[in-house]
Amino acid sequence: MALHIALDAMGGDRGPEVLVSGAVMAVRESALEISLIGDQGRLKAILATHDHPSSRIHLVHAAQVVGMDESPFDAIRKKKDSSIMKAFSLHKEGMVDAVVSAGNSGATMAAALKLLGRLEHVSRPGIAGIFPTLKGPVVMMDVGANVDCRPEHLLQFGVMASAFSQVLFGLNRPRIGLLSIGEEGGKGNILVKKSHELFQQSSLNYIGNVEGRDTFQGDVDVMVCDGFVGNVCLKLSEGLAEAVMGMLGEEISKSFKAKLGYLLARDAFVSFKKRVDYAEYGGAPLLGIQGNAIICHGRSSGVAIKNALRVASEMARNKVNDRILQLLALDHLLGQPDDSPSTLTAASGVDP
Amino acid sequence: MALHIALDAMGGDRGPEVLVSGAVMAVRESALEISLIGDQGRLKAILATHDHPSSRIHLVHAAQVVGMDESPFDAIRKKKDSSIMKAFSLHKEGMVDAVVSAGNSGATMAAALKLLGRLEHVSRPGIAGIFPTLKGPVVMMDVGANVDCRPEHLLQFGVMASAFSQVLFGLNRPRIGLLSIGEEGGKGNILVKKSHELFQQSSLNYIGNVEGRDTFQGDVDVMVCDGFVGNVCLKLSEGLAEAVMGMLGEEISKSFKAKLGYLLARDAFVSFKKRVDYAEYGGAPLLGIQGNAIICHGRSSGVAIKNALRVASEMARNKVNDRILQLLALDHLLGQPDDSPSTLTAASGVDP
Repeated sequence: MALHIALDAMGGDRGPEVLVSGAVMAVRESALEISLIGDQGRLKAILATHDHPSSRIHLVHAAQVVGMDESPFDAIRKKKDSSIMKAFSLHKEGMVDAVVSAGNSGATMAAALKLLGRLEHVSRPGIAGIFPTLKGPVVMMDVGANVDCRPEHLLQFGVMASAFSQVLFGLNRPRIGLLSIGEEGGKGNILVKKSHELFQQSSLNYIGNVEGRDTFQGDVDVMVCDGFVGNVCLKLSEGLAEAVMGMLGEEISKSFKAKLGYLLARDAFVSFKKRVDYAEYGGAPLLGIQGNAIICHGRSSGVAIKNALRVASEMARNKVNDRILQLLALDHLLGQPDDSPSTLTAASGVDP
Repeated sequence: MALHIALDAMGGDRGPEVLVSGAVMAVRESALEISLIGDQGRLKAILATHDHPSSRIHLVHAAQVVGMDESPFDAIRKKKDSSIMKAFSLHKEGMVDAVVSAGNSGATMAAALKLLGRLEHVSRPGIAGIFPTLKGPVVMMDVGANVDCRPEHLLQFGVMASAFSQVLFGLNRPRIGLLSIGEEGGKGNILVKKSHELFQQSSLNYIGNVEGRDTFQGDVDVMVCDGFVGNVCLKLSEGLAEAVMGMLGEEISKSFKAKLGYLLARDAFVSFKKRVDYAEYGGAPLLGIQGNAIICHGRSSGVAIKNALRVASEMARNKVNDRILQLLALDHLLGQPDDSPSTLTAASGVDP
């Protein structure tokens, strides 16, 4: 049976046109069914401008929209008929297999937690960022949902990201590293040192501490860190990649010869840009909830949305949550209740 | 009177030849006096291969060398006649105005703390990283000396980096940002939220939270963070810049046209590389000690060493420590004793 994904068609910085175009691309390239959630009149008009297999795109009306800067708490409490709440309601009712949103990421997390809840045995759901490297992709978790963590939270991030990496990238035993400031186990802050001991005792394919410079080498499949460090890394990488291209562009524009050279090398630049583009995986999976969700960048392109819809469907098809539970069982992490405060407080700081 | 800098001529990954060449460049381009500390016979032989104004380069023998991977504790306890210990001894005796080392950075910090001690009123000396941006340089502190911090430590990092930025870059009121995961003051982990309040009450030109993506925009002059986050950022940036250039190179090498284009644009690439090269400032100043010291990258080039010698001399000439004490006084931070453990435990994780 074809999988069915709900797309919050009102979220994001670039308006519903871009989101709808992503959905149209997705149904063209796959057998997916997609429900566009939002202002029905507006979405219908946008959809009419596309040539699409209409039988697999559905419109679901939602009267409200959560703004990008709204408080997640207020949003989910007051805007029960918002596109993001509606999307997760459909998921809860079993009408769709996954949710994709490029809207307010704190509200997306909050809505997922409120309507779907945490996956049993998971203390802290988190967000997994996917980075391109010189070889395959690397998954970093958490990149913003949980800013203050305990060692057992980091271990669970390792388990969840490992399951995701197995399911999405077909890795049998993903190599797990703990992000630290030196490769020796004795290096790092208190959190990392204690987590290192936990990881060593786990059944994960733990390769030890890794450093920031290892992120883009492709010699580690999963990097574990708290959500503060991960979010800083995510945004620093984004900023640095932009600055590097900006500075290179400035240098090139200084001479005619260099500009000519750039034109000749243009295809290489385009391939390069595609390679480092976050759009390849579309967004960051929210792991540890009773369902499947992808949080996309607010500035997502149509291609990014299309790819996020694909990744969301793969998470559902390959039952990433079953895999997470299996891996948690291996490390006897099932059945340990966690009384830490809800992750909602942190979610407001998330903008992957 | 000409300033006199001690260079640990045995430290680093690339051997004394590179370090000596940096010193020779420095005396050619400035009025500096430099003492090369290390194996006198070997240094003399290397120096003989250079055409240099010999009256301003001195040789000081040290029989031992601290290895790059040695424990800083053991090194400073057991190798009292090492080049790095000798360099700081000279500084302590007032024979030199500053120390530059590309050797074991943990041992460099440990030696500085043991022989020179902390600057009065400074709780935690730290390492300031200097990053190139689209506009001027940005100073990030701490980048690795103190992995677990309290809010008052972060405030002092802000003060010290601010003083450095005033003295080195001639900024009157450097803009200070607290590295966090959202611009609003309510965002961040517990440490950042508490620090935000302290910074708001301070006399610093505090512009609020900044994010990782702001690092390379040049709209903030000083970014404050704990040494764990800072060190991760430093190494991530280094790794990403290398990976970006590596991936771009791979794409360019795929076609003849692109290779030709690259050759035409080569000057732009060279200028670009120079612009993002950490070598421009030579290394990372160690701030908060009773003296002046620069910790260089183990892989430093001769140019990086030359620049580090220049920055070290500017720190001494412009009395960065007096400025630090003035700024601490402004915020009534003088005279508060701090009983936190020595930073030595953290120093072993440092490798800027």
